[in-house]
Amino acid sequence: MNRGRLEAFSDGVIAVAITLLALNLAVEGPGHGPLLDQLAHRWPAFVAYLISFFTIGIIWVNHHALVEDLALVDRTLLFLNLGLLLFVVAIPFGTATMANYLTEGGQDSHMAMAIYCLIFLGMSASFAAIFGWSLGDGRRLHPIPPESQRSAWIRFTIGGLIYVVALAVAFVSAPAALAIVGLVAVYYVVERTPAVGQPTRQ
Amino acid sequence: MNRGRLEAFSDGVIAVAITLLALNLAVEGPGHGPLLDQLAHRWPAFVAYLISFFTIGIIWVNHHALVEDLALVDRTLLFLNLGLLLFVVAIPFGTATMANYLTEGGQDSHMAMAIYCLIFLGMSASFAAIFGWSLGDGRRLHPIPPESQRSAWIRFTIGGLIYVVALAVAFVSAPAALAIVGLVAVYYVVERTPAVGQPTRQ
Amino acid sequence: MNRGRLEAFSDGVIAVAITLLALNLAVEGPGHGPLLDQLAHRWPAFVAYLISFFTIGIIWVNHHALVEDLALVDRTLLFLNLGLLLFVVAIPFGTATMANYLTEGGQDSHMAMAIYCLIFLGMSASFAAIFGWSLGDGRRLHPIPPESQRSAWIRFTIGGLIYVVALAVAFVSAPAALAIVGLVAVYYVVERTPAVGQPTRQ
Amino acid sequence: MNRGRLEAFSDGVIAVAITLLALNLAVEGPGHGPLLDQLAHRWPAFVAYLISFFTIGIIWVNHHALVEDLALVDRTLLFLNLGLLLFVVAIPFGTATMANYLTEGGQDSHMAMAIYCLIFLGMSASFAAIFGWSLGDGRRLHPIPPESQRSAWIRFTIGGLIYVVALAVAFVSAPAALAIVGLVAVYYVVERTPAVGQPTRQ
Repeated sequence: MNRGRLEAFSDGVIAVAITLLALNLAVEGPGHGPLLDQLAHRWPAFVAYLISFFTIGIIWVNHHALVEDLALVDRTLLFLNLGLLLFVVAIPFGTATMANYLTEGGQDSHMAMAIYCLIFLGMSASFAAIFGWSLGDGRRLHPIPPESQRSAWIRFTIGGLIYVVALAVAFVSAPAALAIVGLVAVYYVVERTPAVGQPTRQ
Repeated sequence: MNRGRLEAFSDGVIAVAITLLALNLAVEGPGHGPLLDQLAHRWPAFVAYLISFFTIGIIWVNHHALVEDLALVDRTLLFLNLGLLLFVVAIPFGTATMANYLTEGGQDSHMAMAIYCLIFLGMSASFAAIFGWSLGDGRRLHPIPPESQRSAWIRFTIGGLIYVVALAVAFVSAPAALAIVGLVAVYYVVERTPAVGQPTRQ
Repeated sequence: MNRGRLEAFSDGVIAVAITLLALNLAVEGPGHGPLLDQLAHRWPAFVAYLISFFTIGIIWVNHHALVEDLALVDRTLLFLNLGLLLFVVAIPFGTATMANYLTEGGQDSHMAMAIYCLIFLGMSASFAAIFGWSLGDGRRLHPIPPESQRSAWIRFTIGGLIYVVALAVAFVSAPAALAIVGLVAVYYVVERTPAVGQPTRQ
Repeated sequence: MNRGRLEAFSDGVIAVAITLLALNLAVEGPGHGPLLDQLAHRWPAFVAYLISFFTIGIIWVNHHALVEDLALVDRTLLFLNLGLLLFVVAIPFGTATMANYLTEGGQDSHMAMAIYCLIFLGMSASFAAIFGWSLGDGRRLHPIPPESQRSAWIRFTIGGLIYVVALAVAFVSAPAALAIVGLVAVYYVVERTPAVGQPTRQ
């Protein structure tokens, strides 16, 4: 199996998923009140768009860095990658549902936010599974120094734990959980640490 | 004709089709009862998403393995490949229709499930046609040992027959037919046998 | 400008357009009469899907053959290619509109079919424009023997003329025009003549 | 990080966004008055499709030219590129909203047009940010002569200023602002000046 087609297919899926996010920005149109009111009423859709867009973007950046270090692409890895894409493809659904219920309050907003966090948690766990499988056999990944491996695992664990925390917070306050997920995205965008495996090429 | 663009176009189509699957997960939104009830009511959509996602994923993995062994891409192969994509593109339609009717019972649920199975059967037959055409002329495929060819044909025949069985079962019990289609996906994901043609490179 | 990215972008646009075609297959769902009746009522959508799918597929095959022979990709060619894609992207709209009005009869079905034919005519003319521009400067295309050039121009002219005929017929009988467009697709799929420029590499 | 995957992902996103533009061309269908009237009533959707299609196309052409000159793709550039794509992905939303409100008149048409212009302004600014970052470190871009740099900056500034003007005009006359945005697209399509960085390869 060559790496190029794994990248091309994953890029395609991620590109479609990230673009479909914008479908939920649509307003009802003329005859449903002033446009500004419609837009103001749909602020959660715009915030959700921003957060999901950059979260998917970060996944893409990290996916790229990881796949670049793969020495061997086997059938198991292809299916682990499909597992990751299963969650990526579900993000537009999770984002739209969360945005539609965020300001409803009550049990439904908690439930919608929990689904949103669960999808990100599943994505995060799938990504760690791909990394773990790649490490599990000396032939699958170009050599990574132990300290790099350890720091990558710490990052995966922290990332996953934050989504667990967001999931728990979702049942108390949906907006607070959204803020946590948003801060994760901001953190990954602004941080200067190289992504998984990158140090090995310097 | 170069192989790269056949792969790129097929990957694009498969990537869009697999991502569109998630459009059918959408719930009606606020004002249509508790979110949890809406989601529970739509469980067939989630099961269908899982099964169709991995079935498309398997097609992609197998398509990759087959195309990688092609020595010659001619005009006939391009159109056989379009035939395969015709069914792949129809999967989101078949999946949504099946999921919407699964719990309706009666003739409609049988009909919807039969369409779903027919699309997979068409896809399976198209894939076999591509393989058969590739074998038909010694120049089209890198050499494959006879035992590999035989095992590939057995696999295609069994795969096709299972979809025929599922199609027949659809007219008796839609959920039973769905279980069969789902088991095919699980089988292909967990099996360890290399895909078509892969032995030739070892 | 490198050819690879022109191909990648065109492939992406064509792949998305071909996949969006299937969105119009959707039936209204439970509560709108027996599924079989809904499907039977929507037969134009299925016929239109088949014809548009293979027409887009043929464009992709021919686009591939032409681009493969390009020696130079300049800015004008990029915009001529965008012109081609403008019509490709409009095909799902034209297909859905045509299918929705085909059995309505009267002026509307003529108008809808005329739009459908116009989009294909525009696509055909754009393709000829790309070929013409490529020939216009000796540096842009790998050398093509004069007899190949002449046969390519004859094919373009015939293809364009058939769509003009279909456009005229649309105002008399929409189904007859659809049959013409469908026959063009069948002809290009089954014909054995190599595509534009391919002889130059033999 | 390799340039190829940055191009592939950007091409994928741009290709999906440009294709989704056509979703807004859909008419309501049979039972909503003569088709010709429906189409005539929706003329802003067709004009908006043309302008947005070619504006996205121009972005793609310029993006291609810029990325081709990149010597180094770092993490910051990936996120600046995501910023550009954030606006590209929002174009179908902005286009549909603008087209739906253009003929409504009053405050809503001004607001819808202002959003449309803002998205293009954001896209324009993101593009300039990518160019600026690429220049900021001698290692990131293949050498560009100072006069080329200056002319590129002048073009970015003029492009950005025109969108600022269109944004201001939107609050006075939505159609006038649309005309300005359309003229920008026409100008870039017909102009003969090479894109950013291209002179360096002659």
